[in-house]
Amino acid sequence: MAQHFDIPKECKAGVIYNEGPDFELKVEMVPVPEPGPDDVLLKLNVTGICYSDVHYMLNDLSAPPISYFGVRSPGHEGAGVVVKTGANVKNFKVGDRAGIKPLMDVCRSCEVCWQGKENHCPNAIHTGLMVTGTYQQYVVSPARYTSPIPEGVPDEVAAPIMCSASTMLRSLTESKLRPHNWAVFPGGGGGVGIQGVQLAKAMGFRPIVIDTGDSKKKLSLEMGAEAFIDFKEIDDVAEEVKKIADGIGAHGVFVTAPSAYANATKLTGDRVGAVVMCIGLPPVGTGQMTVDPNWCIVKGRRIEGTLVGTMEDTDRALKYAQRGLLKQICEVYPIDRMAEAVDKLRKGQVAGRMVVDFNA
Amino acid sequence: MAQHFDIPKECKAGVIYNEGPDFELKVEMVPVPEPGPDDVLLKLNVTGICYSDVHYMLNDLSAPPISYFGVRSPGHEGAGVVVKTGANVKNFKVGDRAGIKPLMDVCRSCEVCWQGKENHCPNAIHTGLMVTGTYQQYVVSPARYTSPIPEGVPDEVAAPIMCSASTMLRSLTESKLRPHNWAVFPGGGGGVGIQGVQLAKAMGFRPIVIDTGDSKKKLSLEMGAEAFIDFKEIDDVAEEVKKIADGIGAHGVFVTAPSAYANATKLTGDRVGAVVMCIGLPPVGTGQMTVDPNWCIVKGRRIEGTLVGTMEDTDRALKYAQRGLLKQICEVYPIDRMAEAVDKLRKGQVAGRMVVDFNA
Amino acid sequence: MAQHFDIPKECKAGVIYNEGPDFELKVEMVPVPEPGPDDVLLKLNVTGICYSDVHYMLNDLSAPPISYFGVRSPGHEGAGVVVKTGANVKNFKVGDRAGIKPLMDVCRSCEVCWQGKENHCPNAIHTGLMVTGTYQQYVVSPARYTSPIPEGVPDEVAAPIMCSASTMLRSLTESKLRPHNWAVFPGGGGGVGIQGVQLAKAMGFRPIVIDTGDSKKKLSLEMGAEAFIDFKEIDDVAEEVKKIADGIGAHGVFVTAPSAYANATKLTGDRVGAVVMCIGLPPVGTGQMTVDPNWCIVKGRRIEGTLVGTMEDTDRALKYAQRGLLKQICEVYPIDRMAEAVDKLRKGQVAGRMVVDFNA
Amino acid sequence: MAQHFDIPKECKAGVIYNEGPDFELKVEMVPVPEPGPDDVLLKLNVTGICYSDVHYMLNDLSAPPISYFGVRSPGHEGAGVVVKTGANVKNFKVGDRAGIKPLMDVCRSCEVCWQGKENHCPNAIHTGLMVTGTYQQYVVSPARYTSPIPEGVPDEVAAPIMCSASTMLRSLTESKLRPHNWAVFPGGGGGVGIQGVQLAKAMGFRPIVIDTGDSKKKLSLEMGAEAFIDFKEIDDVAEEVKKIADGIGAHGVFVTAPSAYANATKLTGDRVGAVVMCIGLPPVGTGQMTVDPNWCIVKGRRIEGTLVGTMEDTDRALKYAQRGLLKQICEVYPIDRMAEAVDKLRKGQVAGRMVVDFNA
Repeated sequence: MAQHFDIPKECKAGVIYNEGPDFELKVEMVPVPEPGPDDVLLKLNVTGICYSDVHYMLNDLSAPPISYFGVRSPGHEGAGVVVKTGANVKNFKVGDRAGIKPLMDVCRSCEVCWQGKENHCPNAIHTGLMVTGTYQQYVVSPARYTSPIPEGVPDEVAAPIMCSASTMLRSLTESKLRPHNWAVFPGGGGGVGIQGVQLAKAMGFRPIVIDTGDSKKKLSLEMGAEAFIDFKEIDDVAEEVKKIADGIGAHGVFVTAPSAYANATKLTGDRVGAVVMCIGLPPVGTGQMTVDPNWCIVKGRRIEGTLVGTMEDTDRALKYAQRGLLKQICEVYPIDRMAEAVDKLRKGQVAGRMVVDFNA
Repeated sequence: MAQHFDIPKECKAGVIYNEGPDFELKVEMVPVPEPGPDDVLLKLNVTGICYSDVHYMLNDLSAPPISYFGVRSPGHEGAGVVVKTGANVKNFKVGDRAGIKPLMDVCRSCEVCWQGKENHCPNAIHTGLMVTGTYQQYVVSPARYTSPIPEGVPDEVAAPIMCSASTMLRSLTESKLRPHNWAVFPGGGGGVGIQGVQLAKAMGFRPIVIDTGDSKKKLSLEMGAEAFIDFKEIDDVAEEVKKIADGIGAHGVFVTAPSAYANATKLTGDRVGAVVMCIGLPPVGTGQMTVDPNWCIVKGRRIEGTLVGTMEDTDRALKYAQRGLLKQICEVYPIDRMAEAVDKLRKGQVAGRMVVDFNA
Repeated sequence: MAQHFDIPKECKAGVIYNEGPDFELKVEMVPVPEPGPDDVLLKLNVTGICYSDVHYMLNDLSAPPISYFGVRSPGHEGAGVVVKTGANVKNFKVGDRAGIKPLMDVCRSCEVCWQGKENHCPNAIHTGLMVTGTYQQYVVSPARYTSPIPEGVPDEVAAPIMCSASTMLRSLTESKLRPHNWAVFPGGGGGVGIQGVQLAKAMGFRPIVIDTGDSKKKLSLEMGAEAFIDFKEIDDVAEEVKKIADGIGAHGVFVTAPSAYANATKLTGDRVGAVVMCIGLPPVGTGQMTVDPNWCIVKGRRIEGTLVGTMEDTDRALKYAQRGLLKQICEVYPIDRMAEAVDKLRKGQVAGRMVVDFNA
Repeated sequence: MAQHFDIPKECKAGVIYNEGPDFELKVEMVPVPEPGPDDVLLKLNVTGICYSDVHYMLNDLSAPPISYFGVRSPGHEGAGVVVKTGANVKNFKVGDRAGIKPLMDVCRSCEVCWQGKENHCPNAIHTGLMVTGTYQQYVVSPARYTSPIPEGVPDEVAAPIMCSASTMLRSLTESKLRPHNWAVFPGGGGGVGIQGVQLAKAMGFRPIVIDTGDSKKKLSLEMGAEAFIDFKEIDDVAEEVKKIADGIGAHGVFVTAPSAYANATKLTGDRVGAVVMCIGLPPVGTGQMTVDPNWCIVKGRRIEGTLVGTMEDTDRALKYAQRGLLKQICEVYPIDRMAEAVDKLRKGQVAGRMVVDFNA
């Protein structure tokens, strides 16, 4: 039987003031929105804090600021429960658990969507940019593009899956690596990379992490990396990758940190058919790669990009979590300390993923 | 019944002297080689003259010169007839027509060969570099890596297929374009590109040629291009490609001339999933591409390289020629004017492919 | 500027009485329906008449009759114009041309839809079975699953594309045939098959038609078949296919007529990796294939099925028609003779596709 | 430094007498063969005994008997050491470990080989049928088609990989299953199936075994099966598979025992895009499947066959063994009890794989 929820008139939300280098994030009470006939109203229990939120608040991207769209709360990794459904909604009922992703909706009526590449839909609505994001506890989401959360996956695990794990799964799939292939993760001991490592392992690939420090080494190996290369201790990282990877080189390199673009192609050594997957969006005017066509030609290699996961990728990533094959390393802050959480992330002081709990 | 051929002791060959900027090519009499038990001896009727031969003769590559391998005759596009077979040879008999390709042989016992990527075999033997090439009329070729030439394909058509058409076919296949997709060929009115245009058409793609001049326009449209963009007449070539290609941009860009690398990514416009295929090997230290990872990420695009065709690609390209879907635009010179032919190519004065006839 | 249309209260529709062997189809006036907020109202100019409509009217399938769903007009191949749009509709405006397909809508919120296999969505709504079909002139269609018809494709061409050409395109794609491969169409001179022949040609395959009679031969060869085998004149059809197809056999066999299942595997001869694509739905209890696993194993072959085209397939098929690569062979009847048209089809007297014109 | 081996004039071999239902296998001394210039001479330490050997000895196949080819020793799963190399051999040196597979050689000069489907080469030479097999201790093998055995994989593990594990890996790859998909193995607790289970697990699939008995259950679950269905205890096996596999059904069914063909399609439940992979060759005139095209069409499903692994498959399977992800369940008999070993297999009394040790 469907549960019942009392829906308040107002709820807490992290609201931005003074977008730009001196932005301020305040937790305030805002009106709870009303779902349309094809929507669900979600009561989020947690929201992830992603570094792109920080970009939006700093307003340092080439994109227009969120205020341009009349939006005051960013955020695109939310997990909670359906508390109300629109009249036409069939795929959710009140009480179902569900999550919100970087894309709030896609058009489903363009060639890109028709081809199953909905994540590149030119008409996509970006959560926390073009519409209110998951820094607000009660949010409206189109039922057909809301992701169900399977039993056994806690909200603080599910939230970061909505963005980073789903994207990593997409990228691993698009890489066309085959089981038994070597997948290298520069910065793979971090919050995003470590999800890639676990998923790579679950998909039958052989992960190698390049990062630094004993704690990241320990974590990486526990999470499925077959090798950890500490770039502060190893002089020639590319040579080390080659040595580990059959004396040849990596089949795939998954670049989440823009700083890693510069040397990414080197990590493929002499591997025929290798790929460098670009995932981390470099800030405007930075991160350019200099690519020698010979690198592509002589060994039949490629450079390819992944934007974000699809509905299916999110679903699969959640199911890996359900099977215990994808764990989340995260710090959880209560809603009243949201500004502090954001500040900590901005300063690069977060080891895994940062999550804010609306109920704590 | 197998034919019989009288095999002379000596044959004509183009031989290089003084490798380097002042090289000289002389046609001389050289000994006819003897095939081993797994080889065939070919009597070539024609050899193509490819610009990489010129590089070898100029010795302006980072690779060692052909003299380093004790080789005096370059060339890797040969078409002729089997005049003798080794004791173990089963797949050819005397009188069969056959051709020689850029790879004289591959090892078949490495992981790369096992994966059907023999064209990237690290143990491959390069024709006209590591062993005597097709500038010599009688050449020995391993039977298992010699390409049969089907009935109805003249030698002067078959020879350039061995290298350029086979490579274009490989690249079109690796591009993973689907039928009805737009394939752009910068410099596609030239000898290599026009083979790509015809093959693209035969594979169901929609070719667009970027080149200049009325004769190239006429040729391109006759050979299957749906549009021709004269870069001397059109200001914004990328915008023009976009306009033609559904207002979106090309699905694939096939770069054979290194000068086209600089602007290749622009030709994909806003096309999701587009690819730039790198084919033309830029001379050392030139042709670097500056790639913004955002170009890859936001639209899910890629840059990939093709080295050369496989046995199968050559076979398929030859069969397209047999069906009349691949024609060759070539100038044919008699063997005694080989030096002149090479000089003309070196000076960039050849419209299509250059072919030398050993019998004329 | 958007056009304006006067929408009548009532419109003509072919309505079934007495479903079963003695069914009657009457053209009557019925109320024009009202679109919901996410729908468009289409004024159809034509509807195709498909043999599955006849099955519905005969009620000889294992599926429940259309009356079970309260539906009185079958039909699933409609082409016309948008005359009204719901409040939320963004992808169509009044005056746009559009068509209706066998699936009226899919859920977009199941795993099957997420994987781009929406044509197998378990929640799909079947046109002319679960909701009113295209035998009615004014029909409501969900905007997001309505197919736009490109300029230059007449309605009588577009209508049969909605079902049969789209399905053939899907099947040709799923067959994974490569350009230059042999595609055999048993019964390919008929209305469905001939669309497959044209699409196969456009995709770079080499079609062979097995059918009978001079008119079908002429049509098949004109439409792109490389060979026509008259099964009344050739004793061993499989041997003939083999002879044409390189002495080996077909790469793909596309079975639209259930009677062809029995011998379909034989047409692949000795071809390694060949496929038999099942398209035509055999009536319950008929059409079973007896498959020797050895046929699958020894040559690495497969048998696979295609249900119907996706949104993208329909779009691509329409674009092939726009390019002049897909022509329609059809008989056009005026609406007042709809019953006659259905009867003619039931009796197997239609050469190509049967289309009814609402305006004639 | 290369090792040295004293090569005897004679060696032990299992030799067949009286091919047919009353065949006799005697271990005798036979001459040690001499390798040709492109061959290696292997001293086998073990040979696997495969049920197809029994078929050859019983002479109950439609194929000609091995005596037709002048062969007296069957066997196609050998593991040992290179003791002599032909003059042209570069990829092996004396002392290298190596194995022999069901195909002794392929032609590498046909279209099938060119396409990387060498395992279907029409000119393949079948080991233990067309040439002397691995029941003889010293055997000659073409260097280029001999499989290197990596360090850490014992001979008794390597031998059965040459045939059954390699084939299972090929089949799992050809199934195109994706990570997280359900793979069902009827009879998967047996010697062949259990290798499939382990490989499926290593490739990220989710294996389900259908078999009977506690020991097979224990083994299956230890080797990576997520579920074991005892067909003697469960009434409706297909329903049970469905229940386990998301309430939908298996993505892939891998049929190694011909008796399982009859019900294989049922195990896919309602799964869209599912596949039944045919692996086990049914004796002539048995094992026919009755396939309803509706099964293929409505859910877009397929039936496909796998013959045997390629060089690459064998290599990959050996590397999985090296990583400890593929273990062998086998009984090892000394060479003098070879006839007993064969008899035991013939009577179906072997749990895993049967291996004979030439040195014990």
